[in-house]
Amino acid sequence: MAYELYYWPTIQGRGEFVRLALEEAGADYTDVARESEGLAVMMRMMERVDHPPFAPPFLKDGETVIGQTAAILLYLGARHGLAPKDPAGGLWTHQIQLTLSDVVAEAHDTHHPVGISLYYEDQKVEALRRAQEFRDDRIPKFLNWFETILARNPAGSAHLVGKSLTYVDLSLFQAVEGLSYAFPKATKRALKKAPRVAALRIAVAERSRIKSYLASPRRIPFNEEGIFRRYPELDG
Amino acid sequence: MAYELYYWPTIQGRGEFVRLALEEAGADYTDVARESEGLAVMMRMMERVDHPPFAPPFLKDGETVIGQTAAILLYLGARHGLAPKDPAGGLWTHQIQLTLSDVVAEAHDTHHPVGISLYYEDQKVEALRRAQEFRDDRIPKFLNWFETILARNPAGSAHLVGKSLTYVDLSLFQAVEGLSYAFPKATKRALKKAPRVAALRIAVAERSRIKSYLASPRRIPFNEEGIFRRYPELDG
Repeated sequence: MAYELYYWPTIQGRGEFVRLALEEAGADYTDVARESEGLAVMMRMMERVDHPPFAPPFLKDGETVIGQTAAILLYLGARHGLAPKDPAGGLWTHQIQLTLSDVVAEAHDTHHPVGISLYYEDQKVEALRRAQEFRDDRIPKFLNWFETILARNPAGSAHLVGKSLTYVDLSLFQAVEGLSYAFPKATKRALKKAPRVAALRIAVAERSRIKSYLASPRRIPFNEEGIFRRYPELDG
Repeated sequence: MAYELYYWPTIQGRGEFVRLALEEAGADYTDVARESEGLAVMMRMMERVDHPPFAPPFLKDGETVIGQTAAILLYLGARHGLAPKDPAGGLWTHQIQLTLSDVVAEAHDTHHPVGISLYYEDQKVEALRRAQEFRDDRIPKFLNWFETILARNPAGSAHLVGKSLTYVDLSLFQAVEGLSYAFPKATKRALKKAPRVAALRIAVAERSRIKSYLASPRRIPFNEEGIFRRYPELDG
C-alpha cells in the first residue's frame, strides 16, 4: 500500500525532509494535501486519529500514523535501507537528525522570533536582531559540527554515517539548500570552512532519483511562506 | 557499569528529563559535571569523541555516547521498561517526547527570543512580546494536546501510552513543573482545562523513587539560568 504523506501543500518546510527520503527510496506515496480536497482531509485526520500528530508533517502507513519529522525518518530509514541496521548506528543517525531539527527550528525563528501568530512584517525589528546571531554564530557552528562528523566518519567523509547514504545525508543536503536560499552570503562563507559538507550537498543533488525529483513539479520551490525565507535584510 | 550523564551542573534544563528517567529506573549513574573537575571533563569529551554531541546533555554507556535528550530517552526507555516493547508503541512514545522537546525549546525562547549569546536583560522587550503568544496560545495548545492523548489512550488516562509508566509521563511531569514555575498564572489557567494532565503530574510526583529524588539534593531547584525561568513580567 502506498504511503500517505500529510503536509502543507505550498511549502517545502519540514515535510521536505520526508519527501526526500521517500523519493530516494523510490517509495510509492501520495502527497495528500496537494491533491484536490486534500488539505481538508489532512485537517480532519489531525483531529480524529487515535495518535493525533501535534502538527504536520505526518505519515500514514496502513493503520499507523506517525508525526514529528525525525520520528517519520526513523521509521522510513529502517524500512528502506536509509539507516544503519545496527541499533547503535541507527541511534547515532537519529541523533544527527535531531540536531538537523534544531537547525530548522532556529532557521524558522530568524523570521518569526516573536511568534507564529504574527506576520514577519510585525516582528521585523526582532528578526533583524535574531538573524544576526544565527548567521554569524549558529550557521558556522552547525556546519562545523557536520564537517567534524564527516571528517571523523571512519568509513570516509562521503557520508555522515557509514559508507553509504542514510536519511541524514538527504536532510543535511536539504538544510544546506535552505540555508543557502535564506542566507546566501552567510552560508557561502560558512561552507568555505566546511568543504566536506559542501561536497556532500553536491553529491546528493546528483543522485539519480534526487536529481529527477528536484527537476520535477513535485519539488515545490523555496518561497516566503516556508521555513527558509529569503529576506535580504536578514542576510549579510 | 554505571551510566555517565553529562549536563550543565547548575540547572535542571534538558538534562532533567534524563535524570528523571534514570531515577525512576533506579539506574546507577554519575552526574559527571557536578563532580569535582567534572565540567572540564564534559567539555573535553564533547570535543574528542567519535560521535560528538552538538550540546549537552549526553549519556555515556560504556563506549556508547548518545546526545540529544529525546535520543537518550529512546535508548533508556527500551532498556529499563520505560517504553512499550512493540515498535509501534515505542515510536508513538518517542513522537510524544519530540513534541515535549518542542515545548521546551519554545519555553526557552520566551526569555531568549533574539538569541542565546545575549542576556535576558538585553532582549527583554522582545521577550515580552514572545511570552504573550506562548502563554496565551501555545501553553493551552500544548496542554490540550496532551489532554487529548490521555483521553484517547485505550488503556486509560492515567498514562500517556499504555497502562503503565513510560518516560514521556516523566517528561510531561517535568514540562508542567517547569511551565508552572515560569508561568504560574498562565499554566494554572491552562491546567484547569487539562485535568488529566494535572492528575498525571501529581501521580508522577508521588511515585516513590521520584518523590525521594525530588526531595534529595540531586534535584537542582529551578532558577533563572535554566530553561524555565520565573520572570514575573512574562507571566500574566
